[in-house]
Amino acid sequence: LSRSNKKANAPLYDRMLLHHTQGHTSFHVPGHKNGAGIDPKAHETFAPLLRLDYTEIPSLDDLHRPEGIIREAQQLAAACFGAEQTFFHVNGSTVGNLAMILTVCANNDILIVQRNVHKSIIHGLMLAGARVVFLPPRWDEASGLATGVNLKDVIRAMNDYPAAKGVLLSNPNYHGMGIDLADIARVVHANGMPLLIDEAHGAHYGFHPRLPISALSSGADIVVQSTHKMLTAMTMGAMLHVQGNRVDRGILQQRLGMLQSSSPSYPIMASLDLCRRWMDTEGECSLDNGIGVIDYLHQQISLRLPHIGVLKRTEDTRSYETLDPFKITIHDRSGTYTGYQLRDKLGQAGCDAEMADVKHVLLHLSLASTHEDVDRLINALLDIFTPIRLEKQDILGEISNNNSIPSFSQISTPITMQLPQQRDFVNVKAIPLQQALGFRAAEMVIPYPPGIPILYYGEQITEETITYLQLAAKKGASFQGTKDTTLTDILVFIE
Amino acid sequence: LSRSNKKANAPLYDRMLLHHTQGHTSFHVPGHKNGAGIDPKAHETFAPLLRLDYTEIPSLDDLHRPEGIIREAQQLAAACFGAEQTFFHVNGSTVGNLAMILTVCANNDILIVQRNVHKSIIHGLMLAGARVVFLPPRWDEASGLATGVNLKDVIRAMNDYPAAKGVLLSNPNYHGMGIDLADIARVVHANGMPLLIDEAHGAHYGFHPRLPISALSSGADIVVQSTHKMLTAMTMGAMLHVQGNRVDRGILQQRLGMLQSSSPSYPIMASLDLCRRWMDTEGECSLDNGIGVIDYLHQQISLRLPHIGVLKRTEDTRSYETLDPFKITIHDRSGTYTGYQLRDKLGQAGCDAEMADVKHVLLHLSLASTHEDVDRLINALLDIFTPIRLEKQDILGEISNNNSIPSFSQISTPITMQLPQQRDFVNVKAIPLQQALGFRAAEMVIPYPPGIPILYYGEQITEETITYLQLAAKKGASFQGTKDTTLTDILVFIE
Repeated sequence: LSRSNKKANAPLYDRMLLHHTQGHTSFHVPGHKNGAGIDPKAHETFAPLLRLDYTEIPSLDDLHRPEGIIREAQQLAAACFGAEQTFFHVNGSTVGNLAMILTVCANNDILIVQRNVHKSIIHGLMLAGARVVFLPPRWDEASGLATGVNLKDVIRAMNDYPAAKGVLLSNPNYHGMGIDLADIARVVHANGMPLLIDEAHGAHYGFHPRLPISALSSGADIVVQSTHKMLTAMTMGAMLHVQGNRVDRGILQQRLGMLQSSSPSYPIMASLDLCRRWMDTEGECSLDNGIGVIDYLHQQISLRLPHIGVLKRTEDTRSYETLDPFKITIHDRSGTYTGYQLRDKLGQAGCDAEMADVKHVLLHLSLASTHEDVDRLINALLDIFTPIRLEKQDILGEISNNNSIPSFSQISTPITMQLPQQRDFVNVKAIPLQQALGFRAAEMVIPYPPGIPILYYGEQITEETITYLQLAAKKGASFQGTKDTTLTDILVFIE
Repeated sequence: LSRSNKKANAPLYDRMLLHHTQGHTSFHVPGHKNGAGIDPKAHETFAPLLRLDYTEIPSLDDLHRPEGIIREAQQLAAACFGAEQTFFHVNGSTVGNLAMILTVCANNDILIVQRNVHKSIIHGLMLAGARVVFLPPRWDEASGLATGVNLKDVIRAMNDYPAAKGVLLSNPNYHGMGIDLADIARVVHANGMPLLIDEAHGAHYGFHPRLPISALSSGADIVVQSTHKMLTAMTMGAMLHVQGNRVDRGILQQRLGMLQSSSPSYPIMASLDLCRRWMDTEGECSLDNGIGVIDYLHQQISLRLPHIGVLKRTEDTRSYETLDPFKITIHDRSGTYTGYQLRDKLGQAGCDAEMADVKHVLLHLSLASTHEDVDRLINALLDIFTPIRLEKQDILGEISNNNSIPSFSQISTPITMQLPQQRDFVNVKAIPLQQALGFRAAEMVIPYPPGIPILYYGEQITEETITYLQLAAKKGASFQGTKDTTLTDILVFIE
């Protein structure tokens, strides 16, 4: 087959379908026997896909030792996404982040890491027992949200810690705000280090002129993508892409083999194969439709909803360089509703949002979103806001603008990350935040907004930290992961 | 609702269905938007289930912090399976095994572990950096297969290593051969240790008088079950059950939160909920049907297939105490076909087996297997064996009877388990097995049969090991995981 004919196939899905049509009888796991064992009440929902819920019988290859159709599907994915090698994931970007950290870091190794990263990165660092040098994110004044790092901080951290094993960044952030990675990749490589990118929210990047370029095009060595988030794979379907020789692929494969089920889900793997084929054959056209829907959404808001503020990048924006059009961050300019309240009101109207903070509601659209979806959203917003007069403009705007510059805006000294152990909790106590100076935190503290982890497990609490956290609490930030969600008290180690 | 009424509900699945019928519009992940984004060519297969491929929106709870329907579904599962607390898994028993080890073991801690365990247990020990004292399995002379441990070895190991953090066993083995755990649980608890059981192949135990009792009934503290293997959940659906106070459940929850996707699959979780409801309402009746099918299979083989030997437990069997009726281990008594050849011939006839070794084919049946499945199998076997005269009886029987007693039949000294690192491979070399005395193995060596890991990564190679492995290779054992599958050469560390 020629290259372009091959792209029109989905080797894994096609073979599964063939196996099904050949009518084999299963004397192997899973126990539901191609769906026969499913509760009849759930038959309609589950039966069609469970017909293909296979396992590693000889003709269906093995994710952990791919030699046939899974290898072929991964090779096609590598070509499609611009990698040299691609690994399918059935346990989300979580497993990719864990595996890439465990590949480059052994116990006590230093890794340079953006401070505002997904918890799976922190978990990977804990599993590795790495020492982390945290890079401060830039900070977007207009929204109060944390974005990506500065090139100069990357350079300084590498100069200060030349033995570091690599640089790990998240790009774009949850709200779609991204930075240029090409210059960073160049300097990281010049220092002999690999650049590792958690691109969970950017699987669609590079497939359309209106979208930012991908981390792989920018030169990153390992890139982890949640194919289910911004593209169309089944939930938990993700990919890890590799290029170049800075990372040992054998070790990477070994780590992935440890962290993913030895009975990986064939439907999830097939959905990755199908998604890749779709991007190869219909991707740009399909994204074009989706972008048409988004343009329509912006047009409707600006024509009909003066109450709604929308996060936009302007030419003056210095806190980030790119914005994903599929992530729409809105807020109530009338100051009537917090982000949480607006999210709940939209939910009552049948429009489920991606997330909220005290000010914003984040809406996630994709190539599968439709004009009808937008009409429903606009009508819901009109119902919510028509009774409200636009006079108390942007009263909530101030809430998230905690633009002091506490110590977390600096490059950190190396912090040893370790798994919390049972014995650690023996000496843990909740004390008032204002009395916590000098103690080490026994919990992670992440105020939203801006979503930057201010204290990591085991990190020392400074005067600046206390001042910042008190201000954030006063202004209505929510604290995820702390025992006291108002952060009047904080858990510390009594040593 | 009364207890029995509650059992007839599937709170998670029911709520997902309700959410669907309410017709919400998704402005959240996943990007396929309830299946709208799936390739039209795969619509028929994927669309019905992708309608319910949700994420953690407020009404659908959160696996990592369950407070609503997921908590309720897990509580019903705990009651159904006889646990105090149950954790749903979306990454197979693999993640349960990793998490339970990381819960009880920190770096350098000793754990007493049955030698013939699933690779996920070895991976968990590597991640923890634990020191392992391996217990030898018993050995079944009739089949040549390794089974469970002896009570006296458990006692001796605990006496020799009183600081060990617990005892971890696998039960039943892949072929359904199991041991009595109640006495072991008693002595382990008397030594103040928890008993951890990988019961991946026993999720159905305890639900029918013809089945062995479960590890939980025997007193185990943590039990991991592949609900998808012997019951009817979707592949990767598994559960971890806990009882008693010997294990810190907070730490366990933290470990599971690290190792599973932060976007866990709702269809897989719902399939666990549905499977639990089925067991609560129709379980015994459904297993009764399945056992009827198995009785029919045995009857047909004994009436019509003198060529086929079937693994059976007799009153004299001392190498194991229980045999799962749903695992049927057969071999060719005429000596014509190896297990591999027989497996392939069955596959060509449309009957896909679970696994094969040089002698045996393992057939997996379940409560969803039917008389029609058995008829197809019997007809396939008749086609294969009718031309063959039964004269060279059991010529292959001898192959797996490597009944020498090498060093791996002893309790090992503590072996430090560590993640293989890139630098380790610099000093790795393939040398002839016969020259490997005194070197440390740089690969795991597991001959099938009997499926006991003879050498772990980093374990020293003894005279006895070499003799045993040469004999196994000569007799046709296959070596999984070694670079040279004939094991003429072995990878060792050149130090």
